[in-house]
Amino acid sequence: MSQPRRVGVRAVATTRTSLDVEFADGVVVRGNRFWLRDNCPLDVDRASLFRGTSVASLPDDLAIVGAELDDECVHVWYDDGVCDRVDPWELRARLTPMAAPGCVPWSAGFEPTCFDAARLAPESIEHHALLEAIARSACALVTGVAAHETEALAALLGPVRETDFGRVFDIVHEPQPFTPSQSADALDPHTDDPYRYSPAGISILHCVEPSAGTGGESIIVDGLAVAEMLREADPEAFEVLTSVRVPFVHRRSEPVERAGDVHLRAEAPIIALDGSGRVSGIRFHERSMGAVAVDTDEADRFYLALMRFARAVRSDTFAWRRYLAPGEAIVYDNQRVLHGRSGFEGAQTRRHLRLCTVDRDQVHSRLRRLRERYATGTEADPLPAGNLS
Amino acid sequence: MSQPRRVGVRAVATTRTSLDVEFADGVVVRGNRFWLRDNCPLDVDRASLFRGTSVASLPDDLAIVGAELDDECVHVWYDDGVCDRVDPWELRARLTPMAAPGCVPWSAGFEPTCFDAARLAPESIEHHALLEAIARSACALVTGVAAHETEALAALLGPVRETDFGRVFDIVHEPQPFTPSQSADALDPHTDDPYRYSPAGISILHCVEPSAGTGGESIIVDGLAVAEMLREADPEAFEVLTSVRVPFVHRRSEPVERAGDVHLRAEAPIIALDGSGRVSGIRFHERSMGAVAVDTDEADRFYLALMRFARAVRSDTFAWRRYLAPGEAIVYDNQRVLHGRSGFEGAQTRRHLRLCTVDRDQVHSRLRRLRERYATGTEADPLPAGNLS
Repeated sequence: MSQPRRVGVRAVATTRTSLDVEFADGVVVRGNRFWLRDNCPLDVDRASLFRGTSVASLPDDLAIVGAELDDECVHVWYDDGVCDRVDPWELRARLTPMAAPGCVPWSAGFEPTCFDAARLAPESIEHHALLEAIARSACALVTGVAAHETEALAALLGPVRETDFGRVFDIVHEPQPFTPSQSADALDPHTDDPYRYSPAGISILHCVEPSAGTGGESIIVDGLAVAEMLREADPEAFEVLTSVRVPFVHRRSEPVERAGDVHLRAEAPIIALDGSGRVSGIRFHERSMGAVAVDTDEADRFYLALMRFARAVRSDTFAWRRYLAPGEAIVYDNQRVLHGRSGFEGAQTRRHLRLCTVDRDQVHSRLRRLRERYATGTEADPLPAGNLS
Repeated sequence: MSQPRRVGVRAVATTRTSLDVEFADGVVVRGNRFWLRDNCPLDVDRASLFRGTSVASLPDDLAIVGAELDDECVHVWYDDGVCDRVDPWELRARLTPMAAPGCVPWSAGFEPTCFDAARLAPESIEHHALLEAIARSACALVTGVAAHETEALAALLGPVRETDFGRVFDIVHEPQPFTPSQSADALDPHTDDPYRYSPAGISILHCVEPSAGTGGESIIVDGLAVAEMLREADPEAFEVLTSVRVPFVHRRSEPVERAGDVHLRAEAPIIALDGSGRVSGIRFHERSMGAVAVDTDEADRFYLALMRFARAVRSDTFAWRRYLAPGEAIVYDNQRVLHGRSGFEGAQTRRHLRLCTVDRDQVHSRLRRLRERYATGTEADPLPAGNLS
C-alpha cells in the first residue's frame, strides 16, 4: 500500500474562495477555488488529453463550503455539490515556484563538452549527456561524424526542420554567392534567421572539408554571457535591448533549390526575456537588420546599447574559436549563441560545411524523456524558451 | 533621368545629434545621427546581406557637423570625415509609423472566401487572393482537392513543416485513440500545439471522407474576434489573458509513426499582443493546460477571465460551422483561429480528414512576393506575428 498523502499535514482551513493547508514543517500553502477545481482533483487524470471538462461550465460565484483531512488526503466540498479529493503534497509542489533554467553562461576559455559519434547510440546515457550539454552551455562538439551522417546526427535531436534552404544546406565557397556563407568573407558572430518568426533552433555545423590555408576558423560566442555582462555593466543598455523591437528582413530573389523567392520579416528585441525577467534568447544579425522605428532620442539610447553589444560580440573576451577538422560538428543553440568565422582564401580552397537544424522544443522534449530514465526528478526542470518574443 | 529626390523639400537643419528635413507640405522629419548613418546612405545597398559594416565601429560621440540640400538629395557630414548621401523621401517613409495589419475579425454569419483548387496555379492571381484571404480572415475554403493532393495544396503556402506527427497526419477514427482527434468525441474549438514554442502555423484540414451519419461538423472560431470582444466588454479580463503566462504540456508515450515519446512544454499568454498592443495571436487548448503559477487572488482574476473566454469560444455567437464534403479543405491560421468539431458515431463511420501545416512566416513571405506582382505598394504592409510571445 502506498503512503497516505496526508502524512506531514497538520491542518486544513477554508474560506469561500480558498483552501489553506498547513504542513508539519510550518509551511502553509493556499489554493484558489477555481485553480483547485481545475488542477488538483485526484480522481481525474489531469494530464489526459481526453479529459473533456471545461472551465466554461464553472459558475462565477463558485464557493468552497468545507474541507476535511482524512487518513488519506484532503476532501474539498464546493457549493455546486462537487467534492474533490486533493493530494496536499501535489498541491504544495504545484504552488512552489519553478527553479531557474540550468543555463551556465561562458566566455573565452570555455571548452565545450566533446562527444564521439560512435558512442552516441539513441537513448544511451551519452545521448542524454549530449542534450544536457546543449541545454546548459548551448554548445557541444561531436567528432567522428562521417560526411553522409549529418542527418543521422540530427535524428538524435529531433525531426529535421526543413526551410527554404532545404533539409541540409551545403556551405561551399561559390564564385557567385547568394548568401554570405558562400563567400570567403569573414562573418561576424550572429544568430541565423532572425527574420523568421521562429528562427533556426538547435543547429549542426558539420565540417566535411576544412579550408586548405589559413582562415575559415569557426567562432562561437555565448549571447547569454554577453547579455548578462550588459545587465551588470550597463543596465540602461540592457533594458533598451530587451524592449526595443528590431525589424529583421530577408529579401532574396536568387533561386535556391526547393524554394523560390523569399521576403521574410520579423520584429523582436535583441535580448528576449522570459516571464521572470531571465534572458531566454538572443536574436542578432546586423546584416539583416531593418530600420528601427524609434524617435531620435530613443535612437541614441538604442544605438549606443547596440554598439556596446556588437563590440562585445566581436571581442576576444567572449569567443571560443576552433578550426574544425573533417568529421567534427558543432551542435549549438542558435537562439542563444552566435556563430561566425574568420575569412579565408576562397579561390584555392574547397571549404565544405553542412548546416542542419531541429526545433528547440523537440530537442527539449527528447531531453525530458531521457531525464526520466537517467536523471529522475529533473524532467520538469525548466528549459529556456528561446528568442520568440 | 529619374526625378531628383529633393523635389518637395524646403530646408534642412542639423544639431550634433540629429538632422531635420522640412518638406514643402509642412511636415518636418527628424533623423538621429546613428540611425541615419546605419539606415539611410544612398551609396550603400542597405538591403544587401553582403554589407560588411557594423555599428561596432562607430564612435559613441559621433556628431553631425553639417547638412546641405543640393539639386539631387541631402548630403550629411559627420565629424569622423564620412559624408553620406541621404534620400529625404526615403527618410520620411522610414520614419512614418507602419499601418496596422489588415486583419478583419469575424463572427457567426461569416462565410470564408471559397477557392477552386483547379484554378489555384502557382503564382496566379488566385494564388495571391488565397494568401490575402488567409492574412485577412485567417480562414479560407478550397474545393476540389483530390485525396492525394493535400501536400500539393500545402506547396502553395510554403514548405511543409514536419512534426512528431509526420508531414501529413491522417485523422481517422481509431478504436484505441492516442490523441482525441482519433476518437469520436466532440472537440471544443482550440488551437493546435499550444505546448510547442512555435505552434502549427497555417494549417490545412482536408476532408477525404466525411462522417456517414450526423455529427462530425467542423467548427471554426475567430480568436481575434473573441479577444476584441473581451477587450471591449471586460478590459480587466483582457489584460489578465494577455499577461499571465499559461503552461501547456503534452506528454505522450504511445508510439507514433516517425517519432517517439514526447514531453513538450511551452508557456505563453492566451492572447499575444504585438509591440503596439494589437492582438497578434491566440493560444488556447484547455486539454493541455498545466497549472498556472499565480497566487490565490490572481488565480481568481485569471480563472474568471478564462471562463469568460472559454464560454465565448463555445457559444454560437462566434462560430462558423460546416459539414466538409470530400475534396473540401479549410485553410486556417492556427495562431489566430480555433477549430473544433461536433461528436459523431465512430463505430459506423470512417470519417477521414488529413492535417498538414506550414510555417506562417513562409506563407507571409510568399504573400509579399505575390503582392509585388499583383498589389504593388502593399508588399511592406505589416502582417500579424502570431502567438509567439
